Amino acid sequence: MQIRLGQIAEMLGASVDGSPDVMIYGASKIEEGKAGTITFLANPKYTHFIYDTLAAAVIVDRGFKPENPLQASLLRVDNVYMALSVLMAQFQDKLSIAEGISPDARIDPSAVIGEESSVDAQVIIQKGVVIGKHVKVYGQVFIGNDCEIGDHTILFPGVKLYHRCKIGARCIIHANAVLGSDGFGFAKDASGNFQKIPQTGNVVVEDDVEIGANTVIDRASLGSTVIEAGAKLDNLIQIAHNVQIGRRTAIAAQTGVAGSTRVGADCMIGGQTGIVGHLTLADKLQIQAQSGIAASIQEEGSKWYGTPAIPYRNYLKSYAKFTKLSEMSSEIDKLKKDIEQLQSIIDDRQIK
Amino acid sequence: MQIRLGQIAEMLGASVDGSPDVMIYGASKIEEGKAGTITFLANPKYTHFIYDTLAAAVIVDRGFKPENPLQASLLRVDNVYMALSVLMAQFQDKLSIAEGISPDARIDPSAVIGEESSVDAQVIIQKGVVIGKHVKVYGQVFIGNDCEIGDHTILFPGVKLYHRCKIGARCIIHANAVLGSDGFGFAKDASGNFQKIPQTGNVVVEDDVEIGANTVIDRASLGSTVIEAGAKLDNLIQIAHNVQIGRRTAIAAQTGVAGSTRVGADCMIGGQTGIVGHLTLADKLQIQAQSGIAASIQEEGSKWYGTPAIPYRNYLKSYAKFTKLSEMSSEIDKLKKDIEQLQSIIDDRQIK
Amino acid sequence: MQIRLGQIAEMLGASVDGSPDVMIYGASKIEEGKAGTITFLANPKYTHFIYDTLAAAVIVDRGFKPENPLQASLLRVDNVYMALSVLMAQFQDKLSIAEGISPDARIDPSAVIGEESSVDAQVIIQKGVVIGKHVKVYGQVFIGNDCEIGDHTILFPGVKLYHRCKIGARCIIHANAVLGSDGFGFAKDASGNFQKIPQTGNVVVEDDVEIGANTVIDRASLGSTVIEAGAKLDNLIQIAHNVQIGRRTAIAAQTGVAGSTRVGADCMIGGQTGIVGHLTLADKLQIQAQSGIAASIQEEGSKWYGTPAIPYRNYLKSYAKFTKLSEMSSEIDKLKKDIEQLQSIIDDRQIK
Repeated sequence: MQIRLGQIAEMLGASVDGSPDVMIYGASKIEEGKAGTITFLANPKYTHFIYDTLAAAVIVDRGFKPENPLQASLLRVDNVYMALSVLMAQFQDKLSIAEGISPDARIDPSAVIGEESSVDAQVIIQKGVVIGKHVKVYGQVFIGNDCEIGDHTILFPGVKLYHRCKIGARCIIHANAVLGSDGFGFAKDASGNFQKIPQTGNVVVEDDVEIGANTVIDRASLGSTVIEAGAKLDNLIQIAHNVQIGRRTAIAAQTGVAGSTRVGADCMIGGQTGIVGHLTLADKLQIQAQSGIAASIQEEGSKWYGTPAIPYRNYLKSYAKFTKLSEMSSEIDKLKKDIEQLQSIIDDRQIK
Repeated sequence: MQIRLGQIAEMLGASVDGSPDVMIYGASKIEEGKAGTITFLANPKYTHFIYDTLAAAVIVDRGFKPENPLQASLLRVDNVYMALSVLMAQFQDKLSIAEGISPDARIDPSAVIGEESSVDAQVIIQKGVVIGKHVKVYGQVFIGNDCEIGDHTILFPGVKLYHRCKIGARCIIHANAVLGSDGFGFAKDASGNFQKIPQTGNVVVEDDVEIGANTVIDRASLGSTVIEAGAKLDNLIQIAHNVQIGRRTAIAAQTGVAGSTRVGADCMIGGQTGIVGHLTLADKLQIQAQSGIAASIQEEGSKWYGTPAIPYRNYLKSYAKFTKLSEMSSEIDKLKKDIEQLQSIIDDRQIK
Repeated sequence: MQIRLGQIAEMLGASVDGSPDVMIYGASKIEEGKAGTITFLANPKYTHFIYDTLAAAVIVDRGFKPENPLQASLLRVDNVYMALSVLMAQFQDKLSIAEGISPDARIDPSAVIGEESSVDAQVIIQKGVVIGKHVKVYGQVFIGNDCEIGDHTILFPGVKLYHRCKIGARCIIHANAVLGSDGFGFAKDASGNFQKIPQTGNVVVEDDVEIGANTVIDRASLGSTVIEAGAKLDNLIQIAHNVQIGRRTAIAAQTGVAGSTRVGADCMIGGQTGIVGHLTLADKLQIQAQSGIAASIQEEGSKWYGTPAIPYRNYLKSYAKFTKLSEMSSEIDKLKKDIEQLQSIIDDRQIK
């Protein structure tokens, strides 16, 4: 790539502090800013790098005020991350896939595959599967019988879909993710052995969902486990049977949601969080990483932390005291002695 | 499906409140209860749905007493989940697999495969493998040399078994689970680099075990990592080398058990729990989700919570106070002032 | 195997307490010590087993002093685990792989594969891939375009490498691990929907790294996610985009490291730990399992515990008090009453 800074500014709707005629040869991180590249400043933690960076230009918030002289040109935008998203798409090279249907794929004759879709080698597509247009099915993917895959969806290598899963349009499912495996449901019989409760439902993933590598979404026991449109799930997440994840909710890696819980829309859920089963969570929640949600939450937009989770600020206040508990305990002991001493002084007087 | 309610009642050993001649066309969840379906009430949280459900019939505990009038017929049973398990098996459709051995599977000539077993495309079965009867090996499974698989066991797509693993009869191993990978064992040499300790043991999974998707069970360094009969492991679980999981113990998703620990029989272990290595845990323990078990436990049937875990009730009591720690701290400060004041009053008097 | 104890002693640089002419037929664990085998004592917890073991010989620290009479011979070494590592390599049998390149692998003609390397069936190797000498690529592995794999590296079944990943020499990557998947990066647009930020970087794994089964390492958004030489990662670990893991750092299972964090060299990180993004952690840290690291750490060699993590000893002290919080609260209530009583005594006198 080689592009004038002015062209980039136009593409991003940015105003330029500096010459628009500088040539840009690539992108780099602000802390490693290489000569001739464009970089960005989004996280204030990294602000100090901007004054020394060798990069030719930096994308910044429209309101950014430098506190020292700058070498680099500035591109001022409304939303740095959005601008970055647009810009990076220019530089991106994608994982290869051959066009068309590989002769090495094993596709049931009853399966329907839309126009302009690619199916790579060593893929299995079972009977009754319906795949839309412009879909990419990478190597070693397994698509069980009667699954449906929407237009422009991408299944990366090793994804496994059990039967009857429905995936929407423009979804991205990363390598080795598993959708539609049996929910964890057992009943103890009279002799104390577990009998399996058949899991007869399916998984429904709506449009524009991204699902991370090695994430697992179990099928419902009855009905559907549902990931609503625009939700984003990171890697190694566990979604149990009959869970519903709301629209545009983002869940960080290694979080687990237990059976039949409904998570609201537009929530931000930190990594390694656990959410117990049969709960209902409001929209726009912010849940701190490693929290354990043990009860339903009704307050839209509230912020939570701890196990079991309590309001975020309360947790921080309590935890600050927790780190001083040993001192608190000593203070109590000291108070006891002080009181005993006062008591004895008073007692002495009384005797007098 | 289309079946008289009376027939279902007979199948489940249920008594019927209502007409046995109602026709049932499927099953549904109680909160979505669709007309013409049968549903169930197991979790008391859902009781209020029973009075409005459109479902034709509801399976309930024999002792259930409605507090309002009901539209639906009731099927009264001893164990709702067991009844459900029996009923659902009628409705279930399973992931497809072609009968017999796929010509696309790569099977070493020395491998032995029992009668009525299926091996799907893109499977690798190495030398010396012995597979029982009525086994299902789905596509893209890898079975390393000298593994043994018992009768009626199911390996879902993408399962990887390293060499010499032994899987019992009637086991179910879900997609992309890995068994027999090397335990995490290293020794630091004089220069501070890790040298790998060879992991020469194997994994033994006894009969009637279910293992979730993307779960990993490492082979022993010496001897065997053992999952005893009837144990149930959910998704994304880590079982380290030389661990032993007792009979009929159920472990929820994302739990990790570190090396050489022995977990007792009939335990219930919540999700995201961590158990450190070299411990011995008693039978019938109940361990709350996200707990960290840091010491051996001898009290059979005891209940644990927290990191490091303490008895369940103690944790709840302590945590209730933790949420008020800031107030507790203020109270201590107030007591200090009160005492100082008393002290000064007494001092004043003494001066007098 | 059948070998004189004296030969083993020579191999390990050990001194022998007992006859060097005893024949050894295998290895076993000290708690199961079988007749005719050699075993080892490394963890002091297991010391009591040494006095009853049926094993013919036990590897111990050079300074070990028995407190009771012993049946077994002793092999005294400087480092038990190192000795074990050398010894076990004698007993080990490895997962089978056919020599050479399988005709069932689908390899782009532009890929280069070094001498003495094996590529098993059902492998996909895309264009521009360069594989070194003596590499083992097991069945069902996927290697995306332009990846590089160093000499003597092993990729176990089902490993998926996205494009442009670089793996060093003598690395071991366990089954179903995923490297190079997209980092979790999104920008909210004006309508509240997530727009994907393209992840244009790659993953670099240096020499002598081991990566566990089902672990995921995301590619950088810009630049590289880096695992430095000699680091060891257990199973089911999440490494986010742009993370850097230092040389010889060992990370136990199910830990997650969020984006752009730099972990130092020679750290020991317990299982299920979470580390938030954009931090810098010093060398030689010891982080207790299940901790949540929420801030950068500068003190080399320091030890941490808790969520958010505090110094290890402080956490233990505070947690010891946490388990008594209910009693502490009662003590405060008692102190309040005592003070009230003192107050009333003093008031009474004042009235007098």
